[in-house]
Amino acid sequence: MVSVRFISGFVFGAGSGIAALKLYLYEEEKTDTGSSVHRLIERFGLPQTGAETRFYINHILSYDQSRRTPRWVAEHLSGQRLQGQADRKHCKFKPDPKIPELFTARNEDYLRSGWSRGHMAPAGDNKISEVQHSSCPSSNRTLEMYCRDLTLRFSDVWLVSGPLLLPQVREDGRRTVSYQLIGEDDVAVPTHLYKVILAQKDSTLALGAFVVPNAPIGFERPLTDFQVSLSDVERMSGLTFFPEVDRAEQPKNLCDVDSCQLMDFTQFTLYISGRKVKSARTLARLEKVMTELRDAGITPDDYLTNLYLEKKRELVEKEKKPEQ
Amino acid sequence: MVSVRFISGFVFGAGSGIAALKLYLYEEEKTDTGSSVHRLIERFGLPQTGAETRFYINHILSYDQSRRTPRWVAEHLSGQRLQGQADRKHCKFKPDPKIPELFTARNEDYLRSGWSRGHMAPAGDNKISEVQHSSCPSSNRTLEMYCRDLTLRFSDVWLVSGPLLLPQVREDGRRTVSYQLIGEDDVAVPTHLYKVILAQKDSTLALGAFVVPNAPIGFERPLTDFQVSLSDVERMSGLTFFPEVDRAEQPKNLCDVDSCQLMDFTQFTLYISGRKVKSARTLARLEKVMTELRDAGITPDDYLTNLYLEKKRELVEKEKKPEQ
Repeated sequence: MVSVRFISGFVFGAGSGIAALKLYLYEEEKTDTGSSVHRLIERFGLPQTGAETRFYINHILSYDQSRRTPRWVAEHLSGQRLQGQADRKHCKFKPDPKIPELFTARNEDYLRSGWSRGHMAPAGDNKISEVQHSSCPSSNRTLEMYCRDLTLRFSDVWLVSGPLLLPQVREDGRRTVSYQLIGEDDVAVPTHLYKVILAQKDSTLALGAFVVPNAPIGFERPLTDFQVSLSDVERMSGLTFFPEVDRAEQPKNLCDVDSCQLMDFTQFTLYISGRKVKSARTLARLEKVMTELRDAGITPDDYLTNLYLEKKRELVEKEKKPEQ
Repeated sequence: MVSVRFISGFVFGAGSGIAALKLYLYEEEKTDTGSSVHRLIERFGLPQTGAETRFYINHILSYDQSRRTPRWVAEHLSGQRLQGQADRKHCKFKPDPKIPELFTARNEDYLRSGWSRGHMAPAGDNKISEVQHSSCPSSNRTLEMYCRDLTLRFSDVWLVSGPLLLPQVREDGRRTVSYQLIGEDDVAVPTHLYKVILAQKDSTLALGAFVVPNAPIGFERPLTDFQVSLSDVERMSGLTFFPEVDRAEQPKNLCDVDSCQLMDFTQFTLYISGRKVKSARTLARLEKVMTELRDAGITPDDYLTNLYLEKKRELVEKEKKPEQ
C-alpha cells in the first residue's frame, strides 16, 4: 500500500552544488487581502496560474500550464452513460482555445515521440495484430477497462485521474525525479499515472487509489499490486480528492468489495474486438475483425457475437442503398 | 535572450519504453458549467488543487502543493518600504497553517540537504569568512541585491520570483528534466529560479525577466547573461506575468534603461557587512564585523561608516544601562 513499490533503485549521476533554494515562505503571519501593501503588489496584476477548473461535455479538469498536461481529470461513469457514449469514436483531440497558446499541447508534440496522446485514438488504430504481438497493453488502458467494467457491478463510478512525477532512489538514498519533455511544446511525460476510484451501489461507497507506471504492464498482475492509500496519492499529486466524502465515515476499500481484477488477455482482446466491431464502416472491415479474432484462437463470447450480428444487419442494409 | 543558455549538454541515460500518455484533453467542446453531467461528476467534490492566491504581510504567493515550494511570489519594493523592513531579521520561517499538513514543507526538510530555505536567514549566519572563501554567492542572493539596489534608481519595483524545473538536453536531442527531492516532505529543489522585474520611474515602465541556475554564480557575469524574454519565462513557468501591463504599449527593456550590473565582490562584502552591522547586538560583535572587513582588505564606504557609527552609539548607550 505504499509508493515505494513504484520507485526503482535507478542510480542517477547528477551532482549538485550547495545553493540557495529561495522559498520566501511563511516568514510572516498571513494577513487579510486588501491591505495597502497588497494593493501596491497587485497594481499590475498577480501572476495567472491557469489552474482553474475547466468544464467539458463529459469531464472536468484542471490544466497544468507548466507541464502541458492536465493536473486532474474528473469523470462519472455509469452503465447508462457508457451506452450513450458508444459513438464518440470520431472525436479528435483539439486544443482548448481558452488555454493560452503559449501553454497548449498539440497533437504534433506526440509524433515520433514514442508516446500516444490518450485513450481517444480512433478504434481502427487498434490492430488485432498489435494486441497479439504485445502481451502488455499500457497500464492506463488496462486500468480504464477495469473502471468501465466496474459499472456492471456498481450503479455509479467516479474517477479522478492524472499524471505523476515520482522520484527514483539512488543508492545513497537521494531521491531524484526525472522525466522527458516531448514535442515543440515541451510536454512533460509523466513517470506514473494515478486513478482514484469512488464507486457506489445502494448505500455502499467504496474507494480505491491506484498508481501505475506510465509503461506497459502485464496481464498477470492483480490491480492490488498498484493500490496505494488515499493520502499517499494525495501527497504524490499535491491534490485533495473527493473532499465531500465524509472521511469519518470512511468508504470501504474498493478491493475488499470488488475483485480488483484486471482483464486477462482473452477478455482484453474481446473488448478491443468489440470496439472495432462497433466502429466498422464496411462489411469487409467487420468480417476482417472477426477473422483476426478467430486466427488469434479466441472464440467470440455472446456479447461480441450479438454485437457482430447487429452491426452486420446495419451494414448489409447500408450497403444495399445506393450512395447518396 | 533564450533559455538554451541554461541548458547544459548533460547526457542522461534513462531509457523509457513506449507507453500511453493519457491526456483526455479536448476531445470535446468545452461546455457551460452546471450541466447535469457536471453535477453528477461534482457530487463528491472536485479535486482541490490548492493553487489559490495567499496573502502575507509583505508578499503574495501561490503555493505548489505537489512540489512543496511556491509557484510564484509577488512583492513590491520601494526605498521607503525597504527602510521599514530593516528589522525583519528575527522573523522565522514557519509553516502556514492554512496549507494542509500533507503538503507543508518544514525547516527540517532542509537540514543536512546542502540547500538553504530562503533569504530570511538570520544575518549572523553570513560570516565574513564565508564571503572571503566563497567568491560565488548564490545566484539568487546576487539577484536579490540587484533588486534592492534598483529602488535607488526607480520609485517602485515589482518582483515576481519562483522556481523552475528546466530540462537538460541529451546528445540525441531528448530533453530530460531532473531534480532532487529533499527532506521527509519531498521538497522539490528547482534547477533554476526566475525573477520578473517591473520598475517604474515617473512615466517610464521597464521590464526585465531573468533566469538563473539554482547554484552559485560568479561576480564577473553581467546580469544580461541571464536575461530571457517575457514569453520565454512564461512558457518555462506556465505562468502569465503582470497581466495588467498593456502589452501593446510595451514597457522598456530594463537593461536598456538600467545598468543591469550585479554587485562585484567589494560591493557584495560591503552589503553583507552592512547587514551584520545593523543586526549586531553587542559592541564586541560590532567591532568584529569591522575588523573582519579590514582584514579582507576592504575599506568601509561612507554608508557603512555611518551605519557603524550610529550602531556604535546605540550599543554604547545600551551597554551603559544595567540589565533590566
